[in-house]
Amino acid sequence: MLVEFGGTRVLCAASVQDTVPRWRRDSGLGWLTAEYAMLPRATNTRNDRESVRGKLGGRTQEISRLIGRSLRACVDFKAFAGSTVTIDCDVLQADGGTRTAAITGAYVALADAVTWMRDRRMTKGDPLIGSVCAVSVGVVAGESRLDLCYEEDVVADTDMNVVCTGDGRLIEVQGTAEGVPFSREQLNELLDLAQLGCVDLTMMQKEALAR
Amino acid sequence: MLVEFGGTRVLCAASVQDTVPRWRRDSGLGWLTAEYAMLPRATNTRNDRESVRGKLGGRTQEISRLIGRSLRACVDFKAFAGSTVTIDCDVLQADGGTRTAAITGAYVALADAVTWMRDRRMTKGDPLIGSVCAVSVGVVAGESRLDLCYEEDVVADTDMNVVCTGDGRLIEVQGTAEGVPFSREQLNELLDLAQLGCVDLTMMQKEALAR
Amino acid sequence: MLVEFGGTRVLCAASVQDTVPRWRRDSGLGWLTAEYAMLPRATNTRNDRESVRGKLGGRTQEISRLIGRSLRACVDFKAFAGSTVTIDCDVLQADGGTRTAAITGAYVALADAVTWMRDRRMTKGDPLIGSVCAVSVGVVAGESRLDLCYEEDVVADTDMNVVCTGDGRLIEVQGTAEGVPFSREQLNELLDLAQLGCVDLTMMQKEALAR
Amino acid sequence: MLVEFGGTRVLCAASVQDTVPRWRRDSGLGWLTAEYAMLPRATNTRNDRESVRGKLGGRTQEISRLIGRSLRACVDFKAFAGSTVTIDCDVLQADGGTRTAAITGAYVALADAVTWMRDRRMTKGDPLIGSVCAVSVGVVAGESRLDLCYEEDVVADTDMNVVCTGDGRLIEVQGTAEGVPFSREQLNELLDLAQLGCVDLTMMQKEALAR
Amino acid sequence: MLVEFGGTRVLCAASVQDTVPRWRRDSGLGWLTAEYAMLPRATNTRNDRESVRGKLGGRTQEISRLIGRSLRACVDFKAFAGSTVTIDCDVLQADGGTRTAAITGAYVALADAVTWMRDRRMTKGDPLIGSVCAVSVGVVAGESRLDLCYEEDVVADTDMNVVCTGDGRLIEVQGTAEGVPFSREQLNELLDLAQLGCVDLTMMQKEALAR
Amino acid sequence: MLVEFGGTRVLCAASVQDTVPRWRRDSGLGWLTAEYAMLPRATNTRNDRESVRGKLGGRTQEISRLIGRSLRACVDFKAFAGSTVTIDCDVLQADGGTRTAAITGAYVALADAVTWMRDRRMTKGDPLIGSVCAVSVGVVAGESRLDLCYEEDVVADTDMNVVCTGDGRLIEVQGTAEGVPFSREQLNELLDLAQLGCVDLTMMQKEALAR
Repeated sequence: MLVEFGGTRVLCAASVQDTVPRWRRDSGLGWLTAEYAMLPRATNTRNDRESVRGKLGGRTQEISRLIGRSLRACVDFKAFAGSTVTIDCDVLQADGGTRTAAITGAYVALADAVTWMRDRRMTKGDPLIGSVCAVSVGVVAGESRLDLCYEEDVVADTDMNVVCTGDGRLIEVQGTAEGVPFSREQLNELLDLAQLGCVDLTMMQKEALAR
Repeated sequence: MLVEFGGTRVLCAASVQDTVPRWRRDSGLGWLTAEYAMLPRATNTRNDRESVRGKLGGRTQEISRLIGRSLRACVDFKAFAGSTVTIDCDVLQADGGTRTAAITGAYVALADAVTWMRDRRMTKGDPLIGSVCAVSVGVVAGESRLDLCYEEDVVADTDMNVVCTGDGRLIEVQGTAEGVPFSREQLNELLDLAQLGCVDLTMMQKEALAR
Repeated sequence: MLVEFGGTRVLCAASVQDTVPRWRRDSGLGWLTAEYAMLPRATNTRNDRESVRGKLGGRTQEISRLIGRSLRACVDFKAFAGSTVTIDCDVLQADGGTRTAAITGAYVALADAVTWMRDRRMTKGDPLIGSVCAVSVGVVAGESRLDLCYEEDVVADTDMNVVCTGDGRLIEVQGTAEGVPFSREQLNELLDLAQLGCVDLTMMQKEALAR
Repeated sequence: MLVEFGGTRVLCAASVQDTVPRWRRDSGLGWLTAEYAMLPRATNTRNDRESVRGKLGGRTQEISRLIGRSLRACVDFKAFAGSTVTIDCDVLQADGGTRTAAITGAYVALADAVTWMRDRRMTKGDPLIGSVCAVSVGVVAGESRLDLCYEEDVVADTDMNVVCTGDGRLIEVQGTAEGVPFSREQLNELLDLAQLGCVDLTMMQKEALAR
Repeated sequence: MLVEFGGTRVLCAASVQDTVPRWRRDSGLGWLTAEYAMLPRATNTRNDRESVRGKLGGRTQEISRLIGRSLRACVDFKAFAGSTVTIDCDVLQADGGTRTAAITGAYVALADAVTWMRDRRMTKGDPLIGSVCAVSVGVVAGESRLDLCYEEDVVADTDMNVVCTGDGRLIEVQGTAEGVPFSREQLNELLDLAQLGCVDLTMMQKEALAR
Repeated sequence: MLVEFGGTRVLCAASVQDTVPRWRRDSGLGWLTAEYAMLPRATNTRNDRESVRGKLGGRTQEISRLIGRSLRACVDFKAFAGSTVTIDCDVLQADGGTRTAAITGAYVALADAVTWMRDRRMTKGDPLIGSVCAVSVGVVAGESRLDLCYEEDVVADTDMNVVCTGDGRLIEVQGTAEGVPFSREQLNELLDLAQLGCVDLTMMQKEALAR
């Protein structure tokens, strides 16, 4: 599925395989992993391909790990023992917030894949404990804002990514002072804004899945 | 630009850089290079990412080289001395003929980039000697066919990719016997079909550029 | 310098080089970068060397990036234009909290290096805006705890790393639900605990630097 | 065996292994693969070793794939189920036409290996459907020529490699316009020349195998 | 265990695994392998990490091989069939003679591991045939010296590493003329000195193991 | 030039480049480096290509370093300031003693290259201080032998490589106990034999260069 938030477009796809990684064998559990990547022309100036350079950059690996960890938080792995779901998030166009768009879209792709597996009787019970979405928030010119685009992101003092469940609890909070360190008050203000944003996203995910 | 032929969808983008590779310096000439890649879920069963494996596969490099070579055949490098055009062809969905779709779309991306460069007075004279397009043809069940989809491709006896100029001359001919070796007659029949197909493609390219 | 927190021992060293990365040239600014690594026998069961496998793992790169980002938050790069400080954090023994121990020790190594540079008149003004330290906190068996050792870390429901300045403001907050998502109340409790821990660490850093 | 064509010298060797690649298991078929490489001083100016650079160049992989594909066209894999033949083609000295010399020599090495396997009762029926050889042809100064040496190759307008069976049918045709696109007439002229050349090569292969 | 000789400090650790490399299976024998590495700041000027560069340097591999070979000379592999001992030698600080310090310390780590294995009944008979230690000797300013520090090493005319058994026999002799070739007399003088040094080291190893 | 000793055949070539490595610039000195490699079918059972595996093995790097170090011992680098000589030693067929054959042949290739440079006035004074050759010796079944072939090498108790100058002095001595440690007497016996062997090799080198 193709997720679009402002100028950001991410292609999210889930693939199901009937094996699990070696260290997971004989555990009676399934597995989920995610891979994030950006096309070389997703941004305004071209980036070199990581396949050509022969190694994954730190940013790519960090985001791939974040997406996988976030989605695993909503999965009951006993429900698809022996299977691995791989989520691919490929950024076709980037204008800020690609990692949070990827998580939000990845959940929809996962939910679709779970339906597909259920139809083939590959599951036992419900593999999805809840839903997952993510937003980016930040302080720009002293003001807290939701969903920073690239130009706002560059000048933000604080940048925060928040991953929530559909019922408003927190899965991951990553706040970073870009320039000036931030206070607990600013952190709280950003979290309030983020949790509100997640209410909207959860709604949109439900609509997308209903189609 | 997004090229679609049947179930095949390729994203083609041209980037302009105001340097040339080291070995091309002081030549008074520009350069053009191309990179081809497939998203892991472009096909029905997921392929591992080459960035994760840490090296480019032979097929990827071979097609990247073919695209670059084909486009360079229509470029007058004296007309943009000191600049490099990089063409990225990323296959979002694959159903046969991805390399020929990539070449056909890459020419349109290149022509757009040339216009962009001309507007910025980065060219001297016309960098495009002609247009370039490509088709795949093959023998399926004893019959010559144009634009094989994946299922036809798999059972084809002979598989041929033909790159033509807009005025019908040949830039590259690559014919391969998949099962049984082929005769000169079969080769000629396939070439006839390919050259006819290229007439249509050249028309479509013109329409796309007119928009 | 060797940092020890419980069973965790990290060797932190700062190296000064009188060049900056290419993209930083002509900026009138210095640079700081960090590299984190673990010896193969730092843990109870041996891990393969990343140098032998030929690539850096995602965890290693993520922590290296976190250390660099945290320390850069306390540096005024105008004060050592043209120089790069490289911080090496090598974990000799690991028992939980290696990344926060590394940041806390890295600041001391950096402060030492800054003194060394000042003595050689390589600085202009004070390069250090403030001090930086980090703690790990987590919820174990329903209870918030500071400085989780490895065994607590494994069973923690929520795991959080907090990077603070010496005067109590926040540089980085990374909280992750390991099992069950967490609430805003739990997040606040953990942050309170973390900020208290940082007061102690700042004191210890001052003592170490006084020696 | 050592193949010499003009100033080009290629060492071709076939190795037999009693396993097949994983994806080929349980197919009741054998496999054949080829690897092509050039010594650093095969050409007049030294090339860096691909083993030192740590990756295979695109040209090397492309030629390795071509050699393997060409030879597989003459093999009945049912006749040596469970075995893999690896053909190594190492260019000691290069003066044009290394890939076609490699294919021609590789067939002789393969036929030798098949005899060796037959003597050890590793085959069932005849693994060789026919013989394979290859020539390079090109247009130099408006004239079609067989077996271009390096100096001719550099100035050729069109360059074509043709792989044929011993009875004159086509396995692979690769024609490339180096400068000016070419016409169907020129293609036909080159193919006529190539097929004549292959008659001679087939004779030489028979003589070499008779020894 | 941490070995210190002058300004050189090497951390040596032995790890036991209950498998052997594939080529060693079904041999009824165990295996021993060693890995040597230097922390980036072990020397006075920082060296790049091999894990970051993505490949092991020649020097690192050469020393790892030497350590493994030297220790294997004192092991009876029938005594721990099916197990592999991996020796890690990590240089924290380097001031000449790191490879000989590593071998001497590695033996002690190995002997400790053998005791640990014996307690767990993982051995059959005595796996240690004898003890192993190593010294570096060299000619500095015309004079033979034992245990060259870095500054002496740099100006030495001849540099020699000698690996001995505890009873004075030779396992490995590596002498290299750094500037001027050397004579048999000089070689003999250096060997005399080395064998004396090894008597002392064997004593120290016994003391370390007695603790 | 092609060196043959028994069943061992090594192709040695010297290439001259008019630059030196970065760390050697502004030193007023030239440089010499060597690369050793084995063709996959040099031995009886095929070895994987290091270029395909994507990294150099430890043995390859160790021998490359030995060859370079040995030849540098006979070169006066002031005599070809600013130039680098690269020696390539490629083993076409291996039957024991490939590294010593490579050194002996590499000297001849180097001497040829020096003549070539002198003719082009690229040298100042004589770059060659003396000649260099190398032999392998070993103890087989209790008896010291010169030039072990592969079958002897495998069963040798002690294996030694000796690099000598043309006037009988030592450049490198590498003796390794394969099974049982060896005594000073055995070492001396092997060195006597090696030095005798080098007298013959020096003669052969002179003859080869006279041609």
